[in-house]
Amino acid sequence: MSDVHPTVGLDDTVHQRSRLGILALLRSGVAVEFGAIRDELRLTDGNLNRHLKVLEDARLVASSRQTGRGRPKTWVTITAAGVDALEAELSALRALIALAE
Amino acid sequence: MSDVHPTVGLDDTVHQRSRLGILALLRSGVAVEFGAIRDELRLTDGNLNRHLKVLEDARLVASSRQTGRGRPKTWVTITAAGVDALEAELSALRALIALAE
Repeated sequence: MSDVHPTVGLDDTVHQRSRLGILALLRSGVAVEFGAIRDELRLTDGNLNRHLKVLEDARLVASSRQTGRGRPKTWVTITAAGVDALEAELSALRALIALAE
Repeated sequence: MSDVHPTVGLDDTVHQRSRLGILALLRSGVAVEFGAIRDELRLTDGNLNRHLKVLEDARLVASSRQTGRGRPKTWVTITAAGVDALEAELSALRALIALAE
């Protein structure tokens, strides 16, 4: 990697603004409720659903639906692969920032 | 900004992987030749042209064509608005990294 510009290795699945926000929010490993992610990242339901689908298809997050009394809730967690992908992204961003300083 | 997640303010024009690379490469203000950007960022001619068009339409870079002996060359420079946009992006990325640490 040392000879390659840090942006070359960025993965669009992870780098895209909202998906990067989602993975960063989930980073601790604690499950976060759909509505909390949506509000924190100022997304619409449709937008968040779309980005979660991309991340789930890439197996970077997993979600589970909780039914019972009241409205069903969806809880989202990061996978081990998601943690790795986020770490790789943050490390490339650190290299980019170091280069720009 | 302090209450808002750092990814919320990211601008896709600047954040997109290759365009972020282009702006970072041009950051010093020195004009860089088209082929040098293409090779450094491992892009194709078509891809670089497309990203430059987006950046030029947003007035973040400017390019000039040099003709004369041999093949014409295109030189690309960052504009003052481009420097500001890159700084805003880097500052949001720094905040994201700080949050994740």
